[in-house]
Amino acid sequence: MAKQVATNITWHEGHVEREHRNKLLKQRGATIWFTGLSASGKSTIAFTIEHALVERGHLAYVLDGDNIRHGLNKNLGFSPEDREENIRRIGEVSKLFAEAGLLTLTSFISPYRADRDRARQIHEKAGLAFIEVFVEASVELCEQRDPRGLYAKARAGEIPEFTGISAPYEEPLKPEIVLDTEQLTVVESAQTVLDCLVQRGLLAGG
Amino acid sequence: MAKQVATNITWHEGHVEREHRNKLLKQRGATIWFTGLSASGKSTIAFTIEHALVERGHLAYVLDGDNIRHGLNKNLGFSPEDREENIRRIGEVSKLFAEAGLLTLTSFISPYRADRDRARQIHEKAGLAFIEVFVEASVELCEQRDPRGLYAKARAGEIPEFTGISAPYEEPLKPEIVLDTEQLTVVESAQTVLDCLVQRGLLAGG
Repeated sequence: MAKQVATNITWHEGHVEREHRNKLLKQRGATIWFTGLSASGKSTIAFTIEHALVERGHLAYVLDGDNIRHGLNKNLGFSPEDREENIRRIGEVSKLFAEAGLLTLTSFISPYRADRDRARQIHEKAGLAFIEVFVEASVELCEQRDPRGLYAKARAGEIPEFTGISAPYEEPLKPEIVLDTEQLTVVESAQTVLDCLVQRGLLAGG
Repeated sequence: MAKQVATNITWHEGHVEREHRNKLLKQRGATIWFTGLSASGKSTIAFTIEHALVERGHLAYVLDGDNIRHGLNKNLGFSPEDREENIRRIGEVSKLFAEAGLLTLTSFISPYRADRDRARQIHEKAGLAFIEVFVEASVELCEQRDPRGLYAKARAGEIPEFTGISAPYEEPLKPEIVLDTEQLTVVESAQTVLDCLVQRGLLAGG
């Protein structure tokens, strides 16, 4: 054997208990699920919260189109079946992250209530908090913002089945948080979510 | 707005940098990829390392059949295409975990060299360490151990395409670590991997 460099180790077989992770990370793993139209502000708010959490010594991670669509879900398109599978996989991955102890922020339009509810169910079945955040903005306002020109393309028929234009968005019926982005700034929105995490005891450890 | 309970926050938009995560976790995110026959000892060794790392204040998480096959990959079977997609997804998820800063331990037979190499490539392209650990044991020994009676079922023809019996296992050509489980105890194997993590500077932060 090579020279032993890692010393003073207690060896155990078997799984690490959740409480052990919570204590190490001083938080409880959970998923904060952002849903809303394209350009409603989901990712901007999610990344602002991620940054604030890491600054405060908490481990958070954002799952969004950039790291999911080009990787895990690159073999999925935008048909109804593929959209459902897209959200199913994100639900499963966010649950794994939450189990590992992270505060996981997911930022996807996730337009269908049934798909979001399935993501909630697998978390709750595993005893993990699931906080649905409805990032609210009217189609009109999102279309005005249109930072990536997607609404313009959708209106021109270049993007079929675009949520809010040619495909439905089903608003959450009982989200834990509603962020009215026509009234709140990004920082106010992020603060609202952070306050919710504190109030639910997710940042207090154990 | 509700009462502000989280205070003294510096607000930033944009992504958390990798160095910031490393500093917070006192480690560098990486994937330790265990490959080997059924009953070679992959999961036992992986969980022993996970436990030792968490004991020492490091964040580690095992991805294995239990949390992947019943969740993310429950819509996959054992055809060659599904086996490839199984390992592709695990590669992508382990990369996300490593990006989030975790020491990610994957425990899957992963019999095909090309599939493992693809998992390695996506890590290395992202500047993340990928440590392939070949958990070595002869088919004969694994068949003697057969803790779940799978080899017996495979011999009886009840499990088609069983790695080592009726489906190939392609040994790694240049794994970072080889664990000869016919010679090493579980603790000696775990120690060997842990020493490698120390030597590669993955546990030193920054």
